[in-house]
Formats: sequence, structure tokens, C-alpha cells
Amino acid sequence: MTATYQHRSDLIRVTYKVLSDTLIDPEKKAKAIALGQTTDTWTPTDLSGKKQLAKYTAAILGIDERTHVEGHPYEYYLTIGFPPANTEDDIPSLLTMIFGKPSMDGRIRVESIEFPDDYLKGKGPRFGVLGIREKVSEPEKPLAMAIFKPCVGLSPTALGEMFYELACGGMHLVKDDEIMPDLSICPTEKRLEACLKAGQRAKQETGQTTLYAINVTGTAGHIVSKAKKLAKLGAQCFLLNVLSYGYGVLEELRDIGVPIMAHPALAGAWCGSADRGFAYSVVLGSLMRLAGADIVLFPSSYGTVALPPTETKSIKEALTWTMGPFAKTFPAPSAGIHPGLVPVLLKDYGTDVIINAGGGVHGHPKGSRAGAKAFRQAINWVTKRGNFGGISEREFPELAAALRLWGKR
Amino acid sequence: MTATYQHRSDLIRVTYKVLSDTLIDPEKKAKAIALGQTTDTWTPTDLSGKKQLAKYTAAILGIDERTHVEGHPYEYYLTIGFPPANTEDDIPSLLTMIFGKPSMDGRIRVESIEFPDDYLKGKGPRFGVLGIREKVSEPEKPLAMAIFKPCVGLSPTALGEMFYELACGGMHLVKDDEIMPDLSICPTEKRLEACLKAGQRAKQETGQTTLYAINVTGTAGHIVSKAKKLAKLGAQCFLLNVLSYGYGVLEELRDIGVPIMAHPALAGAWCGSADRGFAYSVVLGSLMRLAGADIVLFPSSYGTVALPPTETKSIKEALTWTMGPFAKTFPAPSAGIHPGLVPVLLKDYGTDVIINAGGGVHGHPKGSRAGAKAFRQAINWVTKRGNFGGISEREFPELAAALRLWGKR
Repeated sequence: MTATYQHRSDLIRVTYKVLSDTLIDPEKKAKAIALGQTTDTWTPTDLSGKKQLAKYTAAILGIDERTHVEGHPYEYYLTIGFPPANTEDDIPSLLTMIFGKPSMDGRIRVESIEFPDDYLKGKGPRFGVLGIREKVSEPEKPLAMAIFKPCVGLSPTALGEMFYELACGGMHLVKDDEIMPDLSICPTEKRLEACLKAGQRAKQETGQTTLYAINVTGTAGHIVSKAKKLAKLGAQCFLLNVLSYGYGVLEELRDIGVPIMAHPALAGAWCGSADRGFAYSVVLGSLMRLAGADIVLFPSSYGTVALPPTETKSIKEALTWTMGPFAKTFPAPSAGIHPGLVPVLLKDYGTDVIINAGGGVHGHPKGSRAGAKAFRQAINWVTKRGNFGGISEREFPELAAALRLWGKR
Repeated sequence: MTATYQHRSDLIRVTYKVLSDTLIDPEKKAKAIALGQTTDTWTPTDLSGKKQLAKYTAAILGIDERTHVEGHPYEYYLTIGFPPANTEDDIPSLLTMIFGKPSMDGRIRVESIEFPDDYLKGKGPRFGVLGIREKVSEPEKPLAMAIFKPCVGLSPTALGEMFYELACGGMHLVKDDEIMPDLSICPTEKRLEACLKAGQRAKQETGQTTLYAINVTGTAGHIVSKAKKLAKLGAQCFLLNVLSYGYGVLEELRDIGVPIMAHPALAGAWCGSADRGFAYSVVLGSLMRLAGADIVLFPSSYGTVALPPTETKSIKEALTWTMGPFAKTFPAPSAGIHPGLVPVLLKDYGTDVIINAGGGVHGHPKGSRAGAKAFRQAINWVTKRGNFGGISEREFPELAAALRLWGKR
């Protein structure tokens, strides 16, 4: 049973999935959210319903009651439209409005969120797929990225050396691990200095620009000014643990003029349950893109820490489908990636993808530089041929060694 | 089966619950977290295991494998100790370390977190239960708090009038609704001005101080300085949607010198699932207290938006049990609270509780002031008598009317 309500493109449209072991009145539930999260209270008062409040009230835009299957919970999809004017035009006040209290009200999950065109103005990625491609002079093919492994405990000099090897191997990007904060044993600024130098040195040899994605961390009062300082010192890309620091920080970094890579740390706590929290495509897709992420990392469906393919597909779609005037955000499926997966990565993501590896680079029998080369060789070959057929061990010894070690799909 | 490992009180001790439909090797799983979230990678490299990394490596402190019950998942409790030195001494870098990637790795939930005594230094609530009691001159009894209802769409003047009524009725605190941000129709500073004036006017009549908890919102670059400005303008208490803005903001507000009330908005997304995310007692208990919350709001187990009693009990315990030198944080169970629940609130929480109501105040047949009076009457009576037995309708007409409307438990 599906009830149709008014269409309101001026509102922020949120679809909630609600599960219940008993039959509920979905309209009553939708009304409770629409009123409770805007102008009204659960208990009517003298002031509720007054005309002055009407433009701040949310509207029910759709109710979809799925056919009930014996032995399964009742399942409802409620779409509510919220006035953008009730927020401060930022994601924290948006989240409080759409899911602050409702998140605690039983089995309810935010499945999708759509925005009025007006709302998108001034938001979204500043660089996106094309901007990142321009920076590394790679107009078409998938990009290759490596993560520092190990990381915590190493000195800036050691990381600079690792960066140099990876850059010489041809990586388009090298990123900090997300667990690497600003520690006295390896201060962020020193890391930046060492890696920028290593990158310049490698570029003189190879001609390839390798962007360093540096982890931006710090206290709430200083993280934004710290990022600005890193930009002045030459930072080429920011890595941000968005859910640890808040989407508000991502929104503020957007205007510094440095590309931003969003890390999914904690996303499993927000999105891991099928009947609570948020869909991954909302948290790592729509909201990251809205807030300005140029690249979004997420667990691939291939590795040990893996998301189901339906989830990774929906994240990729939310990052790349048409969303007002927004640039596409680069999907960067991660974890368990090795060169043998390049054909399946291209099949699942097309060429607008960043192929990101840690162990799958550093674990190469000939070391990190060879691991990086193996990835570039795989990307170059598979982009042309679609698979590894006809590959010559003599021509591509690094790739051949990687395929022997990790296999291929 | 329970394996015992070393005791390390110098480490941050995190206990994870891991569920699996098939038998797993819990030690392997624990090791993967301990190494993967600190110095190592999933794939060993030349540099891993080097001595320089040892002090940054996490340790397995305990593995508890529950007896398996046919038809249920296998259940493991893994306790890992993390070096505090791997963090920036703040909660965002702590969260990334303990649960960044693991949150996305299947059915895993953070059940508890404990800190070394050294780590607690300089952290925790600045006011706590005693500090708040002092501010409202109420040394012993439960405190009464009201929420503005409705809120979004009302002017500062209208809210000031509502504040006056609630304060005259005897409320110790009045709080903004969490969905009330800083909007041009009702700017935060104007709201503060109107409510402080209303509070002064009421105090002249009643002698009672009523603290106004004002919602602190804003962009990441400005929210801390905004709070400082509100403090200068006389703010008596901050309300913060901690999970929307990040624990980092709470940590920064701690040192401004104004008591802080933490709102649980979004907590259901983090804690609602039994096999993902965090236990409520971690997110709304241990971490809120660590970050400096003097008061923590959470859904009571009595209302429509309700948590199970086991959850509310564990939140209350984490806010009030011995935690190094920390002051106790005031629990404020909310949602669905009316005067008839005062006996059960006292039974469940003792006297160190803030009794918080919206509809249960404003929905009183004689209006908000009478609703406030009914709460104070209930608290005064039940603190002495334990229940409503022997209450005189003539002496307490407001309470009697409330009990007739909402009943009692």
C-alpha cells in the first residue's frame, strides 16, 4: 500500500525505513516525526498549530507500506520534507533536525536524503573527479593510491622515505593512515615537510606528481586554523576523519582551497545495522558530497573488512550521480585491495575510481616501490584490455609477482 | 572459556563484543584490532614489529568466549589496551583509534571503556552534581527542568514569556529544545537576553534561581568562540548536541566556565543496535563525562521514545560511579516525563537526578506555570513520603490536576 502526498521540491526530503513487529499507523508515526522535529511537541499546547509556525513545520511527502511477509517485521518507508530554514545551512543542525530524537525511537533508519536545488548552492566538492585528475595529470584512467603502513611510531624521515618509494613507483596519491594524529614523535608539519620534499625529489625522476593526503586532526577550537596553516605550508590534500570530528569540520575545510579526502572511520557505528542509524549511501555518499569531500574512502566489497556489494554500489552512486551542479566525488574503495583486483574494480566502478592499497602495495615481495609499479602496470594494462590476458612477465615483472602472490579475479 | 592476559592500568581499556554465526578464533580477531589500530598493518612488512614501534602497540588484555547456545551467534568479549600516547589526548583521535575501522568489520560493538588514572587528569565535569546544585541553591532534592515547547518559529519575546512562567512555577532549569538553532527569526543572543531578563524578573518574585540552558550551535570554525561570547553575555548553562558537532566541541566548552548539558541527539544511530556501534553507557555515559558534561540528557525508560531500563541504568551508573577524581554528572532522563512518574524516578535514580519535561509541563490543564508547580510539589512530597499517599488536593491543586490527567506510577 502506497499513499501519495504532495510533492515539495523546496523541502529537504528524508526517507526513513521503520520496522515493527506489530502493525502500526504509519501516518501517525510520520506526523510525530514531522511535528516533533520542527514546530510542535508530542503534547499539544496553546501555541501549537499557530499560523506563525506553519512555515517551519515539516510535511509528510510519502508513505509506502510494504506487503507484509509472515514471520518478518512490518516495513514502512516514510518520506518527510523539512524546511531548510529550520537549519543553519550546515550538516550538524540538519542531522539534529532529521534524526536527533527519532534515532532513539525504535527500529528506524535514514535510507535517503535529497535536497532542494537552492540548498545545494555554494556546497559540494570544490575539486571533484576532474579537479583531482588535473592535479595529477591523469585525464582518464583510474588513479592509484597507497597508504603508509606501518604508521604510528615512525618518524617523519621514515615516512618521507616511504613516500619517495611509493612516488617513484608511480602512485598518484599517498595518504596518511587515519590513526596517525599530530604526535610529538611525528608532528603533522614535519610529516608534511618530509613528504613534500620526497614528492619533489621523485617528480624530478619520474615526472609524475604524487599528492600527499595529510591527516588533519586537532581540538575543535583549532582544527580549522590548523588546516589553513597546513595549506600555507603547501598541503596538497587533506585527509579527515569526518565522523570523529564532525561534518561541520569538513564543511569548513571545503573553502580552504585544498582537495579533501574523507575517511569513513566510525561509519560502521552509524551505518552497520540494517534497522538503525543511516544507510551507508547517506553518510558516506550524499552527506560527504554535500559537505565538500572530493574523495571518499570506504571499505570495498572484496577484502576482509568488507561491505556488501549493494552497499558499496549505493555509495558509489551517491558520490557520482547527478546532484544539482555538483562535481562528482571520487570513490576510493579500500581494504584488501591488491593488483589482481583491478579488473573487477574497473568493472564495478568504471574508470572514475581511486584504487587504494596498504598491504597490497607494501607487502609486495620486492618492496613498496615494486608494489606501486605493479598497480600502475595493472591499471594501464586492464584499462586497455579489460583483463590480464596476454600479460608478459618479462615486460611487467612487478605485476607478475603481485599476481603470483595475491592471485587475480 | 575465558583467557586471562596481562593487567595494564596504563592503557585505555576497551571491551568489544563480537558476534559471529560461525566459530572464530577470538585471539586472532583481538590481535587484528590491536595491531591494525596501532602500529601494524594487516599484511606484515619490513618495518612492522620493529622495536621502535613496540611502545605504540596495543595489547590484548582479555578474551572471554561465552558458552555457545544452539541457534544463537557465537559471542566473544575482547578487551584491548591502547596506549594513550597514540592519541592527541582528545576524544576524536581516541574514537578513530579504538573504533575507526573496526566499526565497519562485521558485528562488533564497543561495550565499555576505561581509562588510566593519569589520563583523567584535567578532564571530566567542571561543575557536576554539586556545582549545579549550588547554582540553583538546592542541596539535596531532585531538580526540575522544563523544555520550551513549541520552539522553532517562536520569537525571543515569546520564549522569554514562556521562561518567566516556568521560572515562576519553580523550575530549577529551563532548556532550549535541541532543534532550535541560531536562526534570524530567533537569534541565540536575543533568546539569551530575553530569557535572562525573564529569569531575573521571576527571581525577584520567587527567590528561586532558574538556569537557562541555551543551545550552542554554529560552524566548526566559530562554535567555540560563539560559546565564549555567550558566556560573556551571561549564559548560565550550555546545551550541546554533542554527536552532531563532535565530542571535540564538548571538550573545548569544558573550560569556558559555564556548566554544560549534553543532548543525546543521534545517539540512537550510534547505540541503537545490539550488535554494532557503541553501548549507550559508553556514548552517553563514560565519554560524555570524560569530555566534561555536567548534565546528560537521555530517553527515560517510561515514555514513548524509550530506552530499555537496563540501558538507562547503565547510563546513570557511568555518569555517577567512581571515575578517578571526577565529579558526578547529573542524569536527566527525559521524554514522556510527567509529575506522576516522580516516585518511580526517585526509586530508579535516587535524589541526584534532574526531572525534565516538555509536554508534561506545558500540557498541564492550567498552563505551563501550573505544570511547573505540579513538578515541584511532586518532588517535595515524594522526597519526604516516597509516594503520593495522603496528598491534599486543596493544598496542591496543580499536582492533583496533573495526576488526574496523566495518572501516577
